Amino acid sequence: MSFKILPDETLEDLQVKGLFILQKKDTFRFGMDAVLLSSFAATGRGRKVLDLGTGTGIIPILMAARYEAEKIVGIELQPDISDMAKRSVEGNGLEDRIEIIQGDLKNYRDYFNPNSFDVVVSNPPYMKAGSGFLNPQQGKAISRHEIHCTLEDVVKCADTALKHGGELYMVHRPERLVDVLTSMRNERLEPKVLRFVCPKPGTAPNLFLIKGIKNANPGLRILSDLIIYEDNGNYTEELKAIYNTL
Amino acid sequence: MSFKILPDETLEDLQVKGLFILQKKDTFRFGMDAVLLSSFAATGRGRKVLDLGTGTGIIPILMAARYEAEKIVGIELQPDISDMAKRSVEGNGLEDRIEIIQGDLKNYRDYFNPNSFDVVVSNPPYMKAGSGFLNPQQGKAISRHEIHCTLEDVVKCADTALKHGGELYMVHRPERLVDVLTSMRNERLEPKVLRFVCPKPGTAPNLFLIKGIKNANPGLRILSDLIIYEDNGNYTEELKAIYNTL
Repeated sequence: MSFKILPDETLEDLQVKGLFILQKKDTFRFGMDAVLLSSFAATGRGRKVLDLGTGTGIIPILMAARYEAEKIVGIELQPDISDMAKRSVEGNGLEDRIEIIQGDLKNYRDYFNPNSFDVVVSNPPYMKAGSGFLNPQQGKAISRHEIHCTLEDVVKCADTALKHGGELYMVHRPERLVDVLTSMRNERLEPKVLRFVCPKPGTAPNLFLIKGIKNANPGLRILSDLIIYEDNGNYTEELKAIYNTL
Repeated sequence: MSFKILPDETLEDLQVKGLFILQKKDTFRFGMDAVLLSSFAATGRGRKVLDLGTGTGIIPILMAARYEAEKIVGIELQPDISDMAKRSVEGNGLEDRIEIIQGDLKNYRDYFNPNSFDVVVSNPPYMKAGSGFLNPQQGKAISRHEIHCTLEDVVKCADTALKHGGELYMVHRPERLVDVLTSMRNERLEPKVLRFVCPKPGTAPNLFLIKGIKNANPGLRILSDLIIYEDNGNYTEELKAIYNTL
């Protein structure tokens, strides 16, 4: 195990099966969102997975560790981030199962064949371009705001990439729920399972996890809320289990 | 106060401001859904309210008692139910503020002018026609299944009835969430506030309450869950407060 670490990067121990990940010191760090999504996107051995906007590569690395997917492709627009993700994959010795592609998912036809993936995951930019405070650090802005790709771009790309009956898993913010559900239905990625994530018992959600199935019939199942902290500030048992089983 | 009660009806004390309501003994009874919806649809004095598919008239009667709306119109397709609702309104002495119209909401142009209501409420049939077990009692089937009107009919009618900036409040089942949100957005009744109703703490929701605003910008606020029962089987304080303030 050997990682090439640039001066603006840190190497973080994932404390899962001896895995590590490179992150930018200030801007480009994975969050709990990615951990929750990779847990929600439970999938079987031998499946082909695509991660749209992979960032640090955290989701492919966690999913390779957890699910023994046959092949995971992560696509990332920003060259320095994509390069960092590649070094994380190589440093973990996962280059035979994870491929990081530097590219624009709007040009997906350059990178993969339609109807070829079993699973697509994405932790897309949460905020519409022009909304909220745009982060002065360009890389962070691109990952948080829909500057280079919109929700519709992500969903369209997922629809093309997936086989009939393939699964899309996303994490997003409650204020965008209507956008997410309408985009998915418009692309025939029917929303089938929805789970809200709440900081504490009795609070409003601040994230949601959604699973869609390509060409499925309508009918949504909403799970009980996933709660992060107990009232006393400790992680809930369920959250601990998610981290422990990663 | 005087109610004409038919042999297949019962008179129920609402235990709110001395109000009563007529119900069919076996088939046509209001549920907690209507009480939660009339609480969620809090509105100011002097507003014009329309209830689509009013059934027993429970929502107009509760909203007249609670909010002192200037005028509440309830429209109900089934003649015997509409007649029963009228007798409940008259028996409570609310005929100056509540009008029950027997008619098909798909022919709404016969009954009211477009852009004339501040608020529309609806507790529509939950199940698609042809799905689930169709109740052999025809009246019950009509109120539960989309036999005579679909969700799209309700939302279209609401959109026509409401003024610019007017509010639609509905209660529905989680499995139809995508249908509800996409129908509302399609009719420019933008979903703005969503609240899930859960039987107990930590359970999945079995109902949701949604508020849309005509011609509003996108952006949804999801509230903390409304919990009906404590783990010990007692009503929660919030639910008691909803009943007490009706």
